[in-house]
Amino acid sequence: MLTLDKVFGAQSVLKNIIRETSLVRAYGIASDCELYLKPENLQITGSFKVRGSAYKIAMLSHEEKAKGVIACSAGNHAQGVALAATKNSIKSIICLPDSAPISKVEATKGFGAEVCLVKGCYDDAYKKALELKESMGYTFVHPFDDENVIAGQGTIALEVLNELDDIDAIVVPVGGGGLISGIAYTAKQIKPSVKVYGVQVAGAPSMYNSIKDKKIECLDTVQTIADGIAVKQPGENTFKYVKKYVDDIALVTDDEVSSAILALIEKQKMIAEGAGAAAVAAVMFGKFDLKGKKVVSIVSGGNIDVTSLSRVIERGLFKAGRSSTLLIELIDKPGQLSDISRIIADCGANVTGVHYEKGDTESVNGCFLRVAMETKNYEHIQLIMQSLENEGFKIK
Amino acid sequence: MLTLDKVFGAQSVLKNIIRETSLVRAYGIASDCELYLKPENLQITGSFKVRGSAYKIAMLSHEEKAKGVIACSAGNHAQGVALAATKNSIKSIICLPDSAPISKVEATKGFGAEVCLVKGCYDDAYKKALELKESMGYTFVHPFDDENVIAGQGTIALEVLNELDDIDAIVVPVGGGGLISGIAYTAKQIKPSVKVYGVQVAGAPSMYNSIKDKKIECLDTVQTIADGIAVKQPGENTFKYVKKYVDDIALVTDDEVSSAILALIEKQKMIAEGAGAAAVAAVMFGKFDLKGKKVVSIVSGGNIDVTSLSRVIERGLFKAGRSSTLLIELIDKPGQLSDISRIIADCGANVTGVHYEKGDTESVNGCFLRVAMETKNYEHIQLIMQSLENEGFKIK
Repeated sequence: MLTLDKVFGAQSVLKNIIRETSLVRAYGIASDCELYLKPENLQITGSFKVRGSAYKIAMLSHEEKAKGVIACSAGNHAQGVALAATKNSIKSIICLPDSAPISKVEATKGFGAEVCLVKGCYDDAYKKALELKESMGYTFVHPFDDENVIAGQGTIALEVLNELDDIDAIVVPVGGGGLISGIAYTAKQIKPSVKVYGVQVAGAPSMYNSIKDKKIECLDTVQTIADGIAVKQPGENTFKYVKKYVDDIALVTDDEVSSAILALIEKQKMIAEGAGAAAVAAVMFGKFDLKGKKVVSIVSGGNIDVTSLSRVIERGLFKAGRSSTLLIELIDKPGQLSDISRIIADCGANVTGVHYEKGDTESVNGCFLRVAMETKNYEHIQLIMQSLENEGFKIK
Repeated sequence: MLTLDKVFGAQSVLKNIIRETSLVRAYGIASDCELYLKPENLQITGSFKVRGSAYKIAMLSHEEKAKGVIACSAGNHAQGVALAATKNSIKSIICLPDSAPISKVEATKGFGAEVCLVKGCYDDAYKKALELKESMGYTFVHPFDDENVIAGQGTIALEVLNELDDIDAIVVPVGGGGLISGIAYTAKQIKPSVKVYGVQVAGAPSMYNSIKDKKIECLDTVQTIADGIAVKQPGENTFKYVKKYVDDIALVTDDEVSSAILALIEKQKMIAEGAGAAAVAAVMFGKFDLKGKKVVSIVSGGNIDVTSLSRVIERGLFKAGRSSTLLIELIDKPGQLSDISRIIADCGANVTGVHYEKGDTESVNGCFLRVAMETKNYEHIQLIMQSLENEGFKIK
């Protein structure tokens, strides 16, 4: 049973393990409410997950601790369990599919875990973890559907309400539901008037669907850049808590999440992973009625691969008209590239790539030029197109 | 005259204007010292600059305040002056060259300044600002060479020593020298044993050269991604303070700065601009003897354009073997792209671009295939090349 005492207990257990992250006032992201961020991306291990696993592990019996813990995850949960176990001087084994990125494997080892690479996918690694639990007597640390794990995540609500007691709403990303269960339960016990809103991504709406249909449902597939909340099925405990304590759940798209990641970079100088930016995206894109309210969005983590980050930034720039490509039809005569370059430069844009392509041109001697540019916005792109057309170029 | 009293005075003036940024313990960036970051990238306006300008403006006479202030900058100083003036309810005019990026112009306006766009380059804008100062009676706020501005920047040292009084060294980026003058003066007054080190970029070594040659020198050109410290000439005051109080100055390259930006993103989930990452780069790449020391690096700002950020990430990935391109010679027979794709996929890499090119091939029917890939590291690239060669492909 989850109790407020447990959450306070977790807070005192976690004191020397985690960072107490301070709220950050976020200007320029949401225009109609007073937005604060709870930056758990700046937490040790780069995500809130260490809270739940550290409390879970601290509460184990001496006998259980002596045997060690096991978990299955390629992400934030793995690093949380690894660090929490190491801080408690106990052994941890993390099962990972052998397709897991090297950086995640290294990070998990770096926090002191023994890594067990399992041939296959996540499900194979999960099966292996359960086998090892049975044969070796390890305690399995569930990523979300566990009362102690939930109590650990609930400490976030204590910190938020302690720092800012007059808030109206907390917006929380939802995967399996451990984070929001802890926060909603705790916040409502302390201050029942606080609204707690959940956010899932459109590509992984497991809790959203389950709550709507009033029963736990399992998705066949999940597909999103927010891998940290790409969960096929809510837990039994978490479903129960969300149903009871959460005021509403909304969905955001991957594009909205990308825009939120970009906004956090530009306005707050802070890196969030997809899951971490989901609650900010929900506020940015008005998924809840928060007009005039004092709102805290939980930025749950920051562990995004820089390769993905680079793609998110590119997509965000493209969507905002800050990068673009034009396909221009050329006739086969000298000096056309030079003319085009000059026109674009005169418009104040920056050419970043040029590529000749054959294709279905009007003249048999024609070809297409694909030009990639850094631009200012959509009006700027229009201006460039107009200038090119004014000098006789056809744009496809 | 700079006095410790002035710095303490600045601290009390700034109390309701700036954020007191908390030190962050940085793990995994420097292996041989205990590194802390002073995250002034998380400061209001995204840089420390607001400290100096806000104190400077607060110290103006009623008469001067009534007339307003003027500054010339396309960057952090502009936003600092704008915000500081607005918070003091006085008028500010910022002269900018008309080539300044729209985003900077908008940000400066957003903090309440009147923006005066001047045709030409920075020097033209500067000339215009001096003209307006003469004709309109505005007070000119210098970006660094002013005792009150320096006192404002010195408040950083008060905060650092207050939070962590047993540090051994502070590492500071150096452009015009205002930041390091304030920090070095203040730190040495309070705790003379603290070492203060300065960092410039190899493409803009104005203070470095001047200190070495024991006289103020002016560079003809500056060229660096760290635009915030691309200053041609130190100030007279700042040169004097650096000579007297700074223990050593070192240079870092743009590639080292890029690596530091990447490390701050990956390890600290934090965005720094080039200048902001310079002091971290110096610690990462061992420019000073800091073995076993407790060190604070000042992350001076985070205002980097996301387009530049994207380029820095790409370059960083390339330098670390995490992205790469191969040029493969093909003979003119079907199925070669399919073979190559399979080999690369089997090696666990991800193809991100493919491009056919004509060229100096052995066979007249041959051509080159340029393949861009996401890879794990240099060994991974070697493995892919080996696998391709084993199946008969020639790599250029």
